[in-house]
Amino acid sequence: MSKLTVDEVVAGLRDIVGPRGLLLGDDMAAYEQGARYGQGRALCVLRPDSLTQVQAVARWCAEHGVKLVPQGANTGLVGASTPDASGNQVVLSTSRLRGVCEIDVENRSVRVDAGITLQELNERLEPHGLWFPIDLGANPTVGGMIAANTGGTRLIRYGDVRHNLLALQAVLLEPPGEVLEMGRALRKDNTGPDLKHLFVGSSGASAILTQATLEVHVRPAQSATALVVPTSDAAVLQLLLALERELGDFLSAFEGLSGHAMQAAIDHVPDLRNPFAPEPAPDFAILIELEASGTRTYTGLDLQEALNLFLQDQFEQTIENAVIGNGRELWHLRHSISEGARALGQPIAFDVSVPRSRLMAFCRAARALVAAEFPFLHVVDFGHIADGGVHFNVIWRHDAGRPYDAATVQALRDRIYAMVMDDYGGSYSAEHGVGPHNITYYRRYASPTARRLARGLRDLVDPKQLCGSVDFG
Amino acid sequence: MSKLTVDEVVAGLRDIVGPRGLLLGDDMAAYEQGARYGQGRALCVLRPDSLTQVQAVARWCAEHGVKLVPQGANTGLVGASTPDASGNQVVLSTSRLRGVCEIDVENRSVRVDAGITLQELNERLEPHGLWFPIDLGANPTVGGMIAANTGGTRLIRYGDVRHNLLALQAVLLEPPGEVLEMGRALRKDNTGPDLKHLFVGSSGASAILTQATLEVHVRPAQSATALVVPTSDAAVLQLLLALERELGDFLSAFEGLSGHAMQAAIDHVPDLRNPFAPEPAPDFAILIELEASGTRTYTGLDLQEALNLFLQDQFEQTIENAVIGNGRELWHLRHSISEGARALGQPIAFDVSVPRSRLMAFCRAARALVAAEFPFLHVVDFGHIADGGVHFNVIWRHDAGRPYDAATVQALRDRIYAMVMDDYGGSYSAEHGVGPHNITYYRRYASPTARRLARGLRDLVDPKQLCGSVDFG
Repeated sequence: MSKLTVDEVVAGLRDIVGPRGLLLGDDMAAYEQGARYGQGRALCVLRPDSLTQVQAVARWCAEHGVKLVPQGANTGLVGASTPDASGNQVVLSTSRLRGVCEIDVENRSVRVDAGITLQELNERLEPHGLWFPIDLGANPTVGGMIAANTGGTRLIRYGDVRHNLLALQAVLLEPPGEVLEMGRALRKDNTGPDLKHLFVGSSGASAILTQATLEVHVRPAQSATALVVPTSDAAVLQLLLALERELGDFLSAFEGLSGHAMQAAIDHVPDLRNPFAPEPAPDFAILIELEASGTRTYTGLDLQEALNLFLQDQFEQTIENAVIGNGRELWHLRHSISEGARALGQPIAFDVSVPRSRLMAFCRAARALVAAEFPFLHVVDFGHIADGGVHFNVIWRHDAGRPYDAATVQALRDRIYAMVMDDYGGSYSAEHGVGPHNITYYRRYASPTARRLARGLRDLVDPKQLCGSVDFG
Repeated sequence: MSKLTVDEVVAGLRDIVGPRGLLLGDDMAAYEQGARYGQGRALCVLRPDSLTQVQAVARWCAEHGVKLVPQGANTGLVGASTPDASGNQVVLSTSRLRGVCEIDVENRSVRVDAGITLQELNERLEPHGLWFPIDLGANPTVGGMIAANTGGTRLIRYGDVRHNLLALQAVLLEPPGEVLEMGRALRKDNTGPDLKHLFVGSSGASAILTQATLEVHVRPAQSATALVVPTSDAAVLQLLLALERELGDFLSAFEGLSGHAMQAAIDHVPDLRNPFAPEPAPDFAILIELEASGTRTYTGLDLQEALNLFLQDQFEQTIENAVIGNGRELWHLRHSISEGARALGQPIAFDVSVPRSRLMAFCRAARALVAAEFPFLHVVDFGHIADGGVHFNVIWRHDAGRPYDAATVQALRDRIYAMVMDDYGGSYSAEHGVGPHNITYYRRYASPTARRLARGLRDLVDPKQLCGSVDFG
């Protein structure tokens, strides 16, 4: 730990980043407050505007034992990018690392500084008919997306960030300020251990991510959507397999929406209507999206028509109802679930995954568990059936009849995660990563050997444990 | 190093694997001879038939300081799976680790023992309409594919092995015989550092890979092929971009074949004919393959017709000739190039990659380099344009007018790799990995920090450097 006073740390770091690059007091508020949960207190917030400044900050912090928490757009949900309550951690915001965004259209790749956001990246790519198709309910930075290995709703087609990462640049704490370049703008490169994977999903631990080269994709020229009601749990996977067999080249989303989830959104999000009106929302529905890179010119393919024909054949086999088309409206319903759930009360979020072959069974068992053991809680589950991810969110409603209490929440978390991990071969953090909010479960479920390796890796690049808000050792 | 005699090592290991599991003398020949290059001498060859036996072997070797070289089907091209000439290395063949091949059709995944071959895996998957679509000119084991991170001709559509690896099991040398389970049968799982990536592309160093869970894919119901002649180098990338824009959902291969490469195959492979006959083979051609998971039922799509229409529109813009259809014949030409090249003389293989935007320029510059500095050598280049990989192979022809000499080959390798690495931002090993045959270039081009990390990683799981034939430290 640092033996310097707060004033000495501030003075030392201000010398590096200049007065514009250092925030104090009320200016730090947005950097101290987690996107949805958690609040900390920073010693100061740094906003370096060059790699050289980041290197100098890393060197200075390594020399003086000052802790750094890298932060992108601070949109994460596990507290990994916010400082703790000690007031001893320096937030290193990448928000001014935005100078480089070099698009290589022919290579379908982009070299981009860590502080550029997903939305801005896609705005830059659009004139070239390209996009970075990770679809999320937030606008993170590229660095944050790598640190969290974000997945999102279109993973089944495009993969997660790791699948699209060609190269990565990081600044290490050991050797202090050293720049490590990992990979090049190449799709095939097998020249020893691929070190960049050590920093994907790192939650900002051990190194400061400063630049990446990403593979980007052709922006679709056509899409098709439908919201369908399956005839049974078993029918859901039959439908998915049939869809992958017949139209798998185009499948970009296969999202499950529980009745509770749809109802929460419909009841509480003003401009949203029930797509099944005048009938009530069903117990479960699936949002299907297809995308095609090309127009009809050479294929003659009308994607929506193909989907409609397919769904007609599925009627009475796997589906009993369907709302066709109007992708914007259907996605608006899907993306409004979180807002609707929050309106009901205090969400207790479970971002879990299981093998998709067991997803419907898991959801049913987990709902039964909540009904039996926590009958005053309300399940609002939705998720990504095709990739096995589910946001099994539970709401402590305003009208639950008893006040929110942390011990009950803890007991619920322990029960659900145990079911996911022990009974369903799943993951307690599918796409939000690990941070202070769920590090307990990392410590519970990571094997001693895995932790020994993680500790060894950390000791190689950050032996004093100065970087990040989580310790995987 | 071991202080035991050869007989003591053999006796100790025979106690573990039994007489059927240990080979000596002439029975070792196939395990000592590299697939294309190199020959070593093993102390003995072990063929354990269970995880428990592998663990016991690892423990015994760790205790006695005996070196192990894991070997799959021994099809690699960089010498990573063959023993050195010392006679002190024990080959650990995974050929009897074949008991597990559990297909989860609904999860589109398979848990498979390391010793199962690609061909056998695909035979098991076929009845379910699935496949593991890494397309190679060999039949490696699953373990070997992971250790080499194989890519192949369809990478642009399906990715490499790393992209399809959900979980991995390895036996470590430290703690001796410890089984490390990394990941589960999940597509979304972000729970700390993803350690399995440390062992992908490891060339068998540091740990013995014993089992994996792979994502598998829907076997295509339709495919379409064409062999086209571009109007210019610039047209090649224009054609690729147009194809990705219009028919990118289906693009599975976009392979470049130089005139020399086609001619070598046509001249020397008996059952092969020139698809351009009666005209001679052109200076350069591109093998295009499209695949669709579905039939025409819902899309109305005839894939070959779509490709033909597309190519019609490209005439005089980017292409000047095309041979349509007959995929089997066109792929036979593509896959016969290596055989044809070997018939000409001694191949000097360059498995390199560059950003695909620079691939045509690189090939032209590299051909010019050979013509200027090594005019007695003959270039037979072909490759994977869409992923930037190229087999820039050079032949020391029987009629070169001077005998093959190692110093000249070394000079050529240094020159070509320097061009790839320094001038074109490329890789000196795109898909064959690193082994004794090219470790020199790892030592030349890996940064000191990257090597320090690799050394640190190795020390965590194999501190005595007992496992594998390469040392990345």
